[in-house]
Amino acid sequence: MLLEETIKKIGELDRQAQKRTRLRLDDLTKPPGSLGMLEEVVVKIAGITGKWMPSLEKKAVIVMAGDHGVVAEGVSAFPQEVTPQMVRNFLRGGAAINVLSRHAGAEVVCVDIGVAAPLKEPGLLSRKIAPGTRNIAEGPAMTLEEARKAIEVGIEVATQEIAAGVQLLATGDMGIGNTTPSTAILAAFTGFPVSLIAGKGTGLDDRGLQHKVEVIERALRVNKPDPRDGLDVLSKVGGFEIGGLAGVILGAAASRVPVVIDGFISGAAAMIARALAPRVVDYIIASHLSEEPGHKIMLKWLGLEPMIQMRMRLGEGTGAVLAFHLIEAGLRILREMATFSEAQVSKKSED
Amino acid sequence: MLLEETIKKIGELDRQAQKRTRLRLDDLTKPPGSLGMLEEVVVKIAGITGKWMPSLEKKAVIVMAGDHGVVAEGVSAFPQEVTPQMVRNFLRGGAAINVLSRHAGAEVVCVDIGVAAPLKEPGLLSRKIAPGTRNIAEGPAMTLEEARKAIEVGIEVATQEIAAGVQLLATGDMGIGNTTPSTAILAAFTGFPVSLIAGKGTGLDDRGLQHKVEVIERALRVNKPDPRDGLDVLSKVGGFEIGGLAGVILGAAASRVPVVIDGFISGAAAMIARALAPRVVDYIIASHLSEEPGHKIMLKWLGLEPMIQMRMRLGEGTGAVLAFHLIEAGLRILREMATFSEAQVSKKSED
Repeated sequence: MLLEETIKKIGELDRQAQKRTRLRLDDLTKPPGSLGMLEEVVVKIAGITGKWMPSLEKKAVIVMAGDHGVVAEGVSAFPQEVTPQMVRNFLRGGAAINVLSRHAGAEVVCVDIGVAAPLKEPGLLSRKIAPGTRNIAEGPAMTLEEARKAIEVGIEVATQEIAAGVQLLATGDMGIGNTTPSTAILAAFTGFPVSLIAGKGTGLDDRGLQHKVEVIERALRVNKPDPRDGLDVLSKVGGFEIGGLAGVILGAAASRVPVVIDGFISGAAAMIARALAPRVVDYIIASHLSEEPGHKIMLKWLGLEPMIQMRMRLGEGTGAVLAFHLIEAGLRILREMATFSEAQVSKKSED
Repeated sequence: MLLEETIKKIGELDRQAQKRTRLRLDDLTKPPGSLGMLEEVVVKIAGITGKWMPSLEKKAVIVMAGDHGVVAEGVSAFPQEVTPQMVRNFLRGGAAINVLSRHAGAEVVCVDIGVAAPLKEPGLLSRKIAPGTRNIAEGPAMTLEEARKAIEVGIEVATQEIAAGVQLLATGDMGIGNTTPSTAILAAFTGFPVSLIAGKGTGLDDRGLQHKVEVIERALRVNKPDPRDGLDVLSKVGGFEIGGLAGVILGAAASRVPVVIDGFISGAAAMIARALAPRVVDYIIASHLSEEPGHKIMLKWLGLEPMIQMRMRLGEGTGAVLAFHLIEAGLRILREMATFSEAQVSKKSED
């Protein structure tokens, strides 16, 4: 059972490495803690990797693509055909995630885990579980077996990338309609009223948003997902790419590799992962706060704090790869800054 | 009169260039506006530079260093000798701003505009107006003549860097005690109670913060700065590095070069610059939200929104150079992403 084995492998952070990193950071020529989260993320990575002065050279973003039966209800501003069209765009290097990954020096790994159209493109990892989920407004998105399979695909892809040398992972998504299942997942775990957490996704108007709220409420009523059971929630109101990304997060944690989550869809995947293995949040770095209104609540539930707030709402992993630069900046601070004694700088008056 | 000439040169943004950039951004394969501030900053830069597809290759951060007579009141956690020590650290490449500038591919330009100790180091721009300001708790920080001179030093340094090819500027500061004058400037312009906007700077305790509040209140009472007069505010409760950075901002705007401001001290400089030339804010990009409690109010007053929120409170320009990567990311999006027709991706259903 790959899922259970993976969960079992997720260990505690290395407190010794973290302590040594913290001591070094406090000895650098700046007021202790004055670089805020830039320092905290470095300490986190020390705990994850077990190295007090970690270095993350090879980076990749895993973009999982899947479709959603619930688009039949008219919950998205874009037609479903955009999912395979964008996958082709990813493979040709023309999408936002390609541009930002080149800028970040990261590889884009694109996975078809459940696109509704046949796709056979060079460079695409074909791991299709089914051609889209079923309509969650009428019943479960997928079987329990499919939910497990989606997660295991993510574990396998992450493990494979790590075996190929990747030291820093990010999660990205593509799937027309996927803020709808993500909002349903958020509501299922937190009990927040859907009307307070649903957003306009890629560009609904007010009437469209109201309709989306009703569809999500219906999906929750029809399916009754059990918030104590991550697999149940995923199978009833989730999506294949959401399950796949939950697997990427679990796989990264099991291999002690930090994983940077993108926005709302990646956050829903992280919720599923945390429901299955609470300790997994220690291995997750939040990148940005999305424009989707529920994202703040999602990150709070996960106990994570975003670094970037630019009102982005694109997905694909775009916020996550932007954060790579900030994370690397923290690692360079640790490695390259002078200490008080090296630079002959006086410490705080009280010291 | 360099100051008046510079202010006169600050023109309107190029609306034509902005319109063309916006059209192109909306034709790229993403929901319109879905990259949020990443798109907005690109449109801003198009308006500043007058180029619809701008490219900013050469970047620099100008770090102005100055001391503050008010440290005699015990308002800082660090002793004044740290200012020249840190300037030497900057010149040897060991400080946070050096590491982050290397990471961003930017040059560090270090200016002694008012350090209290004699400094003669290779690479340092020596433009000392006086060895520190006078104690603002007892009277004005500097004369009106010195205030003007500080701003003009900033204009000259910015203009010089731009003449040498720099296309993107950032502001950075060094000066033990400089959150005190910056808070006084914020209070002078906004009328906010000092107790609500003063912060712990580099690491005061609660008692130290209470004392700092009293000192700032005294400085405002003694000096009565006139919020309608930027030079008056700067001369009475400002600092040499703050004036210098106000000059950098004005000089950049006059040359149509975007200028990225760092945190609380750079924000105070931006307030002085705006008081002198309201249009200057069109040329400013806010980088991060500082941990100093008054910074949010400052940015609101300036009408600017930060991109990064990492609880940083170091200064030196560290937040500003971190934002370089994000700004360049936006420019690459504009330049490299495929359009809907190029990638054969369908547009929104309503279109």
